[in-house]
Amino acid sequence: MRDVHREITDWLEPLGTEVRVDAAGNLRGLYPAKEGASRLLIGSHLDTVPRAGAYDGVLGLVIAVALLKGLKEQKLPYAIEVVGFSEEEGVRFGTPFIGSRALVGGLDQDLLAMQDARGVSVRQAIVEFGLNPDEISEASLTDDVCGYLEFHIEQGPVLEKLGLPLAVVEAIAGQSRLEFTFVGRANHAGTTPMDLRFDAVTCAAEWIATVERVARRVPGLVATVGSVQTKPGATNVIAEEARLSLDLRHREDEVRTRAVEDLTHHAEEIAQRRELSVRWSTHLNQRAVAMDPFLSDQIEEAIRRTGCEPHRMVSGAGHDAMILAEKVPAAMIFLRTPGGVSHGPAESVAVEDVAKAIECGSYLLTQLASSTTFQTRTRHA
Amino acid sequence: MRDVHREITDWLEPLGTEVRVDAAGNLRGLYPAKEGASRLLIGSHLDTVPRAGAYDGVLGLVIAVALLKGLKEQKLPYAIEVVGFSEEEGVRFGTPFIGSRALVGGLDQDLLAMQDARGVSVRQAIVEFGLNPDEISEASLTDDVCGYLEFHIEQGPVLEKLGLPLAVVEAIAGQSRLEFTFVGRANHAGTTPMDLRFDAVTCAAEWIATVERVARRVPGLVATVGSVQTKPGATNVIAEEARLSLDLRHREDEVRTRAVEDLTHHAEEIAQRRELSVRWSTHLNQRAVAMDPFLSDQIEEAIRRTGCEPHRMVSGAGHDAMILAEKVPAAMIFLRTPGGVSHGPAESVAVEDVAKAIECGSYLLTQLASSTTFQTRTRHA
Repeated sequence: MRDVHREITDWLEPLGTEVRVDAAGNLRGLYPAKEGASRLLIGSHLDTVPRAGAYDGVLGLVIAVALLKGLKEQKLPYAIEVVGFSEEEGVRFGTPFIGSRALVGGLDQDLLAMQDARGVSVRQAIVEFGLNPDEISEASLTDDVCGYLEFHIEQGPVLEKLGLPLAVVEAIAGQSRLEFTFVGRANHAGTTPMDLRFDAVTCAAEWIATVERVARRVPGLVATVGSVQTKPGATNVIAEEARLSLDLRHREDEVRTRAVEDLTHHAEEIAQRRELSVRWSTHLNQRAVAMDPFLSDQIEEAIRRTGCEPHRMVSGAGHDAMILAEKVPAAMIFLRTPGGVSHGPAESVAVEDVAKAIECGSYLLTQLASSTTFQTRTRHA
Repeated sequence: MRDVHREITDWLEPLGTEVRVDAAGNLRGLYPAKEGASRLLIGSHLDTVPRAGAYDGVLGLVIAVALLKGLKEQKLPYAIEVVGFSEEEGVRFGTPFIGSRALVGGLDQDLLAMQDARGVSVRQAIVEFGLNPDEISEASLTDDVCGYLEFHIEQGPVLEKLGLPLAVVEAIAGQSRLEFTFVGRANHAGTTPMDLRFDAVTCAAEWIATVERVARRVPGLVATVGSVQTKPGATNVIAEEARLSLDLRHREDEVRTRAVEDLTHHAEEIAQRRELSVRWSTHLNQRAVAMDPFLSDQIEEAIRRTGCEPHRMVSGAGHDAMILAEKVPAAMIFLRTPGGVSHGPAESVAVEDVAKAIECGSYLLTQLASSTTFQTRTRHA
């Protein structure tokens, strides 16, 4: 992280940007305004996952640097603050968005006390990095911030399928995570006739098929059973238990909540009909977050000016923009991700698509420079 | 094993039985004939699984002892050899029926070389038990053996469901064991729309439902997917891989073979339609073994004489009788197993059912004593 901070600082400083690292480990570079009292944040995260690709997160910073470079020292009526967030993925402490939460006042004592696998707390890690956790409040958004903009790879196959390089993100989907456990009776695979079984695997299979059917029927809903664990899990024993994860996302919280109810109802019905039992627990219930309509319209116009068709879509993954949206108008631009492949070494982007993203960003900065609506917006209470 | 040998020897010797332990660790007690040159084996296994019940295997020996005791020193026109087999379950060396294989000449050098988890070979274990592996050929069946009889708990729910204490086993089902691996594409659970997924879990679920449907449609077929493993197995990642076990049993090898073909065909069709791939490997392909019709008829008659309805059924589990049937007419009697529960501490039998089994055995010994057909049968070539 020190190396990437140094590298990006070396890019930013020659462009007339004042760079610092805040107490939450976020890299922050301020490109001052010509005049005027508003500030646009352009950011993304600098951390990533183990065995990651080269673009998730950091590409957003590279594009921000390119945009400042493209200004050729010209100042705008608003300042631009480039933000490279720390700890977005949640790999080390098991909780995501630590860096961006500091900007909205969410990096509280509870979060500071969380520990990594070796028992090192967030607070301790901050100290060891050479920062002062007691100064975290100084990382908060200032009153002059009137918007947040994030460029990010889509990490999905939609834009590639449509043959488009860029999209406006209208909302970040809400997310439910649950665990379902079907409990039947373990029995001998050879001596138990088909009609005298209470098989947790066949019961679970029927429910998985239902999950898929329901999700396909509801537009925009995605539902995933990513993990199946069987007990005892032996070839010659009818499974007593099948434990399944369910991940469910939709842009509308009501649709998502109804789908969760629907699928738990189906689980109960299937288990009851087969004379098994089922229990479930909710591990996450995160509301959908809408992106700012004004900024999104401006992005749409900027994409159009690059000659591309501006697709509007929902992000199925969480992003720092979701956290920033709590306090400021936030918006996102997605770049096409070949094969939808992310979080792996095969992650890629096309050079032409990055060029389009930078071009779109330039148009956007110009549009916002002439928009009094934008510059007079204030941060949410 | 030494303790159980001592205990059963202490029961057998006072009944006029000459007891020895053969080179494969089988306990063998010979109750001589009044006259005549034929010998009936009554046996079962003395080993069991970890965390076992009290009846699987050893109950067959207890019933054999009770039958000799019931003769009250009266001699029959044929000798009775009580056999307590070693290593039927295959827990220690990963291969079952070691003891009974010695009687049919199947405990060969390859089998003697097999090792347990600590690297101890079967040969070494035999030596450590105080026996001589070079004398194993002396454990073989002698020419005077004209039948093998095994009492065993059903280990399944059929007799309980029918409300009957005893059954004649007509055949031991053939068995196929396979492993199927469906391979799709790992993708983000949030960013990948339902129609752009190559989900190994939903693909596997559809196939599991097919396995169940096919097995329910074919009378006597049992098919079990006992183990499901997903990769990467994370809540928020569409599974790339689902690995499933398949256990398939039927009394007719043709029906079983056709079912295996049918299910592999379905796996291919489902995978192809969903644009995934599937591969499979066969781990076991064991033919069905018919029990001796003459002895089975005699058992049926003996059960009827106890006042019970003699149910005829197929054993879905393997037994020593399956091995013995290679060389001599073999037959089995099942005892009702409450709840079908076996291989666990809750395994049980009803005292009255054991009494019926002993009564049935007594009738059977008497029937065979007056049957010249039985006494003049010889061992298969």
